[in-house]
Amino acid sequence: MSDFATLTALLLKFRDERNWKQFHTLKNLILSLNLESAELLELMQWKTDEEIAALKSDPAFRQALKDECADVLLYLLLVAEDAGIDLNEAALEKLKKNAEKYPADEAYGSAKKYTRLKQ
Amino acid sequence: MSDFATLTALLLKFRDERNWKQFHTLKNLILSLNLESAELLELMQWKTDEEIAALKSDPAFRQALKDECADVLLYLLLVAEDAGIDLNEAALEKLKKNAEKYPADEAYGSAKKYTRLKQ
Amino acid sequence: MSDFATLTALLLKFRDERNWKQFHTLKNLILSLNLESAELLELMQWKTDEEIAALKSDPAFRQALKDECADVLLYLLLVAEDAGIDLNEAALEKLKKNAEKYPADEAYGSAKKYTRLKQ
Amino acid sequence: MSDFATLTALLLKFRDERNWKQFHTLKNLILSLNLESAELLELMQWKTDEEIAALKSDPAFRQALKDECADVLLYLLLVAEDAGIDLNEAALEKLKKNAEKYPADEAYGSAKKYTRLKQ
Repeated sequence: MSDFATLTALLLKFRDERNWKQFHTLKNLILSLNLESAELLELMQWKTDEEIAALKSDPAFRQALKDECADVLLYLLLVAEDAGIDLNEAALEKLKKNAEKYPADEAYGSAKKYTRLKQ
Repeated sequence: MSDFATLTALLLKFRDERNWKQFHTLKNLILSLNLESAELLELMQWKTDEEIAALKSDPAFRQALKDECADVLLYLLLVAEDAGIDLNEAALEKLKKNAEKYPADEAYGSAKKYTRLKQ
Repeated sequence: MSDFATLTALLLKFRDERNWKQFHTLKNLILSLNLESAELLELMQWKTDEEIAALKSDPAFRQALKDECADVLLYLLLVAEDAGIDLNEAALEKLKKNAEKYPADEAYGSAKKYTRLKQ
Repeated sequence: MSDFATLTALLLKFRDERNWKQFHTLKNLILSLNLESAELLELMQWKTDEEIAALKSDPAFRQALKDECADVLLYLLLVAEDAGIDLNEAALEKLKKNAEKYPADEAYGSAKKYTRLKQ
């Protein structure tokens, strides 16, 4: 089984042992995914890029990052499961689309949004 | 290689062909992860749970969900790569913590935050 | 003085007494505005519209809503001050634009995004 | 009438002419507030503090900032109206709480979260 499938199976078991499926509408799951993304963002609050780079070797900060990344992933797996999305396939497909939207030669070293690349 | 490792390798190749690493500070990546989560949330805007359940079989809606889930995953992979986090290990560890915070018998059928479970 | 101007003056005094201007780049302020919006959203997590309607008369819930709304407003005032935006004027101008994008007869009772209204 | 009351009255008229109250549950309004905050954040994406400071004098960027700030404010007014919150009072009350949480002498020049100030 893929990583995604293994983790999803564990997650559904966890959910069902608690009878939580009733709360897990797609809207609620995506709302929770946004809350977890915000908790990850909170770790960056008021810090400069330099301070964050230094904190990457701080054990407590690293653990907080790890926990919040995990929370985002766990909700993303639940969202994908509910919507019948194969995350691995979705990511591969999106990478291909991005490669067409941002041709390497035109996008090289530029952070412009793709809609502005040809202006 | 795991799914995560394979996708991350493709993603880094994509990034480096465009010389985009210079923009990818951890703060910027997490900010972008939040923007993609919000785009996923936008698909839910003004809709009821019933309307969303019905839309799950609409091809255009399904594709939009798939694309936005992929965007969230791609940024999460970049965040994890930058921070040196093993996402699979992080998710397994977090699931274990959650199982301790929300014992199945106490949390059964309850959406209360774990801090309130024992009140 | 307008409400906005009075609150902004108090807020700047608060900021300067703490020598916090150095942290208040526009990017950091907008990031914090997003975190406060997410805290407001967290009060809605896992709840149905009916449960939220009932909670509106619960004193603790009302106070939490009030505090989080205040936090969003305070950061919005700081963002506007930093960017030199007159919030009252901005809101009046945007209401006029919205009235043109969503003509009352076409938008009546419809939650469709304005770009789809004429399809 | 206060700025908040005047804007809210205009906003309710706009809403009712379109028969949109039916969509405006508190959860939906707060979800939309989060989406608008994210659109404001998107204007910061991939930019450094220096680039943003320079863009503050760019007319198109200023207008985009103004529009997105207005959208955040408009939804915040709708949230407050629905929840029966006086925003001016809420902001004054929160400023007072913040002054107690962050005494000027202890918080001077420090971005530490208040819970860590006394460590």
